[in-house]
Amino acid sequence: MALIVQKFGGSSVANVERIFNVAKIITDTYKEGNQVVVVLSAQGDTTDELKEKAKEINENPSRRELDVLLSTGEQISIALMAMAIEKLGFPVVSLTGWQAHIQSDSNYLNARIKNIMPDRIQNELARRNIVLVAGFQGINRFNDITTLGRGASDTTAVALAAKLGADLCQIYTDVDGVYTADPRIVKTAHKLDEITFDEMLELASLGAQVLHNRSVEMAKRFNVNLEVRSSLENKPGTIVKEVAKHMESTTISGVAKDDNVAVIALTHLKDVPGVAYKIFSLLATKKVNVDIILQSIGREDTKDITFTVTEDNVEIAKEVLTESQESLGFESMSIDTGVSKVSIVGSGMVNNPGIASQMFEALSSVGVNIHMISTSEIKVSVLINQSDSDRAVKAVHDKFFIK
Amino acid sequence: MALIVQKFGGSSVANVERIFNVAKIITDTYKEGNQVVVVLSAQGDTTDELKEKAKEINENPSRRELDVLLSTGEQISIALMAMAIEKLGFPVVSLTGWQAHIQSDSNYLNARIKNIMPDRIQNELARRNIVLVAGFQGINRFNDITTLGRGASDTTAVALAAKLGADLCQIYTDVDGVYTADPRIVKTAHKLDEITFDEMLELASLGAQVLHNRSVEMAKRFNVNLEVRSSLENKPGTIVKEVAKHMESTTISGVAKDDNVAVIALTHLKDVPGVAYKIFSLLATKKVNVDIILQSIGREDTKDITFTVTEDNVEIAKEVLTESQESLGFESMSIDTGVSKVSIVGSGMVNNPGIASQMFEALSSVGVNIHMISTSEIKVSVLINQSDSDRAVKAVHDKFFIK
Repeated sequence: MALIVQKFGGSSVANVERIFNVAKIITDTYKEGNQVVVVLSAQGDTTDELKEKAKEINENPSRRELDVLLSTGEQISIALMAMAIEKLGFPVVSLTGWQAHIQSDSNYLNARIKNIMPDRIQNELARRNIVLVAGFQGINRFNDITTLGRGASDTTAVALAAKLGADLCQIYTDVDGVYTADPRIVKTAHKLDEITFDEMLELASLGAQVLHNRSVEMAKRFNVNLEVRSSLENKPGTIVKEVAKHMESTTISGVAKDDNVAVIALTHLKDVPGVAYKIFSLLATKKVNVDIILQSIGREDTKDITFTVTEDNVEIAKEVLTESQESLGFESMSIDTGVSKVSIVGSGMVNNPGIASQMFEALSSVGVNIHMISTSEIKVSVLINQSDSDRAVKAVHDKFFIK
Repeated sequence: MALIVQKFGGSSVANVERIFNVAKIITDTYKEGNQVVVVLSAQGDTTDELKEKAKEINENPSRRELDVLLSTGEQISIALMAMAIEKLGFPVVSLTGWQAHIQSDSNYLNARIKNIMPDRIQNELARRNIVLVAGFQGINRFNDITTLGRGASDTTAVALAAKLGADLCQIYTDVDGVYTADPRIVKTAHKLDEITFDEMLELASLGAQVLHNRSVEMAKRFNVNLEVRSSLENKPGTIVKEVAKHMESTTISGVAKDDNVAVIALTHLKDVPGVAYKIFSLLATKKVNVDIILQSIGREDTKDITFTVTEDNVEIAKEVLTESQESLGFESMSIDTGVSKVSIVGSGMVNNPGIASQMFEALSSVGVNIHMISTSEIKVSVLINQSDSDRAVKAVHDKFFIK
């Protein structure tokens, strides 16, 4: 008998038909003799609809009260799913975040799980109940309801799997696993059977929207076996784990593309110590995340600094830099949002120094110009024109995966 | 500084405009220097819509899971109202049933409040917060969510007022108080300034749907000052209390009519001890409430028994009596649903033996025939033809209230 945690997203429970589809998956797992704990998101667009309701009353409500409102979405999901499972004739109990003792900090709307007291869930499992837990929500030390932020039902599932010592944590979604590239762009992309946590983390942060980043970090920390699989087809997905057996002979596990990138260039900065520190600490105070940084010596005693931010951070970055133009002492600022970041990820890369150059060769062969380059132990990212990006992903993918 | 508990029903919070109307009433009370605790129902038809959602999935879901689902309705109300009050610039906090520690038994869908631990509410009041509490819901000893049944937000409000030692418990509704008769039937009916708990209980059980019966019982037990008033107009309502000062020179406080009545007559029962006990215990096992009972000696050694039940209990009463016709030994059963019960209620009646006869005189003067009579210390009820009922209510009302 294994203990399995399953997570289903909002689209998987959006209507009666889908609810019963999910109820079937859950009860099939239970029928095989497993203990089953299920984490559910709010149905379809419920969370957005509730936010809209709030906005009609108050454009700027307190985060505490928003959480009281938003947490009802998952509560409705678990109750309806429990009724569907009852209808199929299986023992089931639903638990809200506070009933499951999911303790979080007090950062309303974006709280972090601090601890889970598993006693209630374990008691229900001991009674052979299927246990449904409302995802995305917790309770803080004041006994107030918190929500864990967008996509955080994944995190609830992984945290529960870690705390309960589950054998497997299955994240059900509308894709059937992690692919070597986005199958909508690259026809030859194929599903990976296994991938490491680190690779998954790089892919997640690079825009492969399969798993929420915090959930992968947590799975890595507590060594939870994760599986990404489809709620629409019953077939094996992709296992995410510490060490992956790659079926491929290649050393990379995937190619990812991210269009949510903008380049900001500051020219003719005075070439004195601390100027880079000033710029990036200024941006950090406004919570602007900087990704790739390129610094070049200019003429005379000046230099240029070029860096990337996400597109939604462009306005705030522009504002804060313009305000400080005098003290930073740059001559001009240019902003380019027509760029993409294309990356290859693979834990085998660290021992294969030729990987980066193979990527550059592939890009060169299809005439794609590289603006900036960034590398880590398991990743190489290049910044290119957005209009080149699909062609670039295809070329890089086929270079590594098609022999 | 007074402590005031206010309760608003579902129609009072059905849309954004009404939410702000209620928020204004609440904050006006707060501005006068009072501590304010507010109990809210689910918006408009939310509860029915949630029930419908459940029904699409499972015609017969567990009562526990239905309560998980239904309790979200009030949670949405308190969050939205909190946002409206924030918008008006006042300090506010919303609490669900479990956060307010409203402890109930485990009779899901129709639970009873067992106790309230007022610490959280008192802490919030001490911080000068307006406190919003979700009505209709509680938590049982298993930490599971319960609901208290239809109309039970009144009961939540009264229970809170009792526990907190509130100076006043205001029940806001769409009528502006308790009337001497239904104003839709009797043009001369007028609002009462005060009424006793006992009178209110009789009127509530007689079909004057102003206050939920359980809430009046509880208010009487804990001597909570109740006020029924309008959420649409700012004017004094009717105070319900232990001893009422009646402005009127009359000894009765109201005339009520109830059309939800049926008469069942059993003829030629054997006149032996225990036959009445058999009939009524049989009906009690099926939860059929019997109201007025008339027993008459028939010819020879038989008797007839006539009694009233509510119309929705007619079928089940008929069924259980027919099944036991042989053992009960009655000859025939007749059922009449074309009747109404008209009652006068007044705590002064007990010292005024002539009241009943004045009522009969009023009925006789407009040619209304009386089928059955039932009296208690503060009530006289007569059973008449339904077609006579409006005329009867008018005649009786004017006899006592128009001099």
